[in-house]
Amino acid sequence: MLNSSDATIIVSVIGTSTASSEIYALALEVGRLLVRRGCIVACGGRGGVMEAVCRGAFEEEGISIGFLPGGIEEANSYVTIPIPTGLGEARNLLVVSAGKAVISIGSAFGTLSEIGFALKSGKPLVGLATWKAIDEEGNIFPAMMASCPEEAVEMALSSISGGNDLVKG
Amino acid sequence: MLNSSDATIIVSVIGTSTASSEIYALALEVGRLLVRRGCIVACGGRGGVMEAVCRGAFEEEGISIGFLPGGIEEANSYVTIPIPTGLGEARNLLVVSAGKAVISIGSAFGTLSEIGFALKSGKPLVGLATWKAIDEEGNIFPAMMASCPEEAVEMALSSISGGNDLVKG
Amino acid sequence: MLNSSDATIIVSVIGTSTASSEIYALALEVGRLLVRRGCIVACGGRGGVMEAVCRGAFEEEGISIGFLPGGIEEANSYVTIPIPTGLGEARNLLVVSAGKAVISIGSAFGTLSEIGFALKSGKPLVGLATWKAIDEEGNIFPAMMASCPEEAVEMALSSISGGNDLVKG
Amino acid sequence: MLNSSDATIIVSVIGTSTASSEIYALALEVGRLLVRRGCIVACGGRGGVMEAVCRGAFEEEGISIGFLPGGIEEANSYVTIPIPTGLGEARNLLVVSAGKAVISIGSAFGTLSEIGFALKSGKPLVGLATWKAIDEEGNIFPAMMASCPEEAVEMALSSISGGNDLVKG
Repeated sequence: MLNSSDATIIVSVIGTSTASSEIYALALEVGRLLVRRGCIVACGGRGGVMEAVCRGAFEEEGISIGFLPGGIEEANSYVTIPIPTGLGEARNLLVVSAGKAVISIGSAFGTLSEIGFALKSGKPLVGLATWKAIDEEGNIFPAMMASCPEEAVEMALSSISGGNDLVKG
Repeated sequence: MLNSSDATIIVSVIGTSTASSEIYALALEVGRLLVRRGCIVACGGRGGVMEAVCRGAFEEEGISIGFLPGGIEEANSYVTIPIPTGLGEARNLLVVSAGKAVISIGSAFGTLSEIGFALKSGKPLVGLATWKAIDEEGNIFPAMMASCPEEAVEMALSSISGGNDLVKG
Repeated sequence: MLNSSDATIIVSVIGTSTASSEIYALALEVGRLLVRRGCIVACGGRGGVMEAVCRGAFEEEGISIGFLPGGIEEANSYVTIPIPTGLGEARNLLVVSAGKAVISIGSAFGTLSEIGFALKSGKPLVGLATWKAIDEEGNIFPAMMASCPEEAVEMALSSISGGNDLVKG
Repeated sequence: MLNSSDATIIVSVIGTSTASSEIYALALEVGRLLVRRGCIVACGGRGGVMEAVCRGAFEEEGISIGFLPGGIEEANSYVTIPIPTGLGEARNLLVVSAGKAVISIGSAFGTLSEIGFALKSGKPLVGLATWKAIDEEGNIFPAMMASCPEEAVEMALSSISGGNDLVKG
């Protein structure tokens, strides 16, 4: 059974539902590392990158929250707490809102909407083999680009400054 | 730190943010009982009934998920996993969607919207000192009315038939 | 083509998607009367009461906005401006948010969620052959119950006090 | 008063709330042109690009629908049908869902989320002085980039193939 003790940070991982094996491996390792660092993983709860981060969290006996667009039957096999939102694509906002930082892996269209929401929220956003979005003035986002899962997790966690958004336990 | 093992059922508790002491006590006991029965509590994450069920879950070292209308600062002191949805009142649907059964306590207007969503979803809905909604033909909802927290939790859990919506762990 | 001139008030009509012929006739007349009084009708855009109010508005050459749970193919034949929200049942909140007053017809479960949202918003809410929701203290909602379409429309429009929420044109 | 006759197409315009004078002028002209071509404009209903397209539509006596994150007081002075959604940033999805095609102007973070939703929906998406989003394989989106308002409107309208999503009237 799930139970609670210490404070835990939620980190959101966004990414494509049809990941290549390289992308899947990156996401799997990010899931593992986040749990080892004491985090809960939030994601969209489906396949590809979402399955991989949930699986990584599962292998480390951690918790993943999956915000599903529709019903519970959409959940991948590893998500610990599936939330069947019924909100369709609007659930992308929830994935981003849930976390204290956001890691983006891969280049799906839905992921791009989540990158936009993460930037808008002002939360730390780290990219790993993901979109480069260039504005009219030539600025590139995400501003933090990691070259491997370890760096992505380190960048995300070290960018979380305050403590008021900690999960309480 | 939160960690996962066995399968756990999420039960949603809906109710007023400005509870009388009687209503607060009912909700507190429902929170305790749900955790003792191995459940995770989902609610709106704020005050009144929401605080009471989170507090009850907390006292039993269980987990509560609070779907907040706005930011994380709205969370009560006992919620384990606060989700700052930013969706305003639309988060009421999430509270209902998250659970495998729904227990309604008290008579706030927002609670009435959640009763409507619970009935629409077809999930087991148990009332405890809550709204009575009468349709044109004289049918009364919630159809299951409990007289105490023990009965409310028993009614809710015994009405959950299948196992496919179990939280995986 | 649609074009704009004077200020117009949006009134929301909520109700069942599987209306009896009596309920359908009430909603049809409410749609006609609202347009004759210079209003735009907002509703859920589907069948039953929603179709009837759109049809009434259409017959009077008025405008109806239909907030659909899914895609545009769900729209009834009479809705002027169909909005395919993709938000599922959460679109119920939009139907209520759009209007300056709300008229409830019939007793579907979704309608009950909308009654809850309308009460929460503090907007004028008029019932016509609809739910009676009774709180713990015995108060009955909607507080305004009309006996015919004419009375429902009159109650709704006379309860709209301010002018700042007028549709601009 | 607004009234309805022929079929009309809704086109969504997405863009920054703090537009430079150059960007504002582009959006103003897009609003004018869309109405001259018989379209209704959908947007986020606030300032900057949103105000400019509503103003352009207003000058041509057309209709604009503004999906506001919060209440009606957020609407710009030119929006014809303001919809106070209360959904916060999730209303970005509605702006995209409402239209048969999408035109993006400027480079706000919220706009990037809307570009993601538009791409995900498969609707025609035209960029005008906006984000360039590059995926892992080097593909650039939006695929259609216009150099002036006339070209943007022409690209958008000529890319709308079917007729089943026409606004009925």
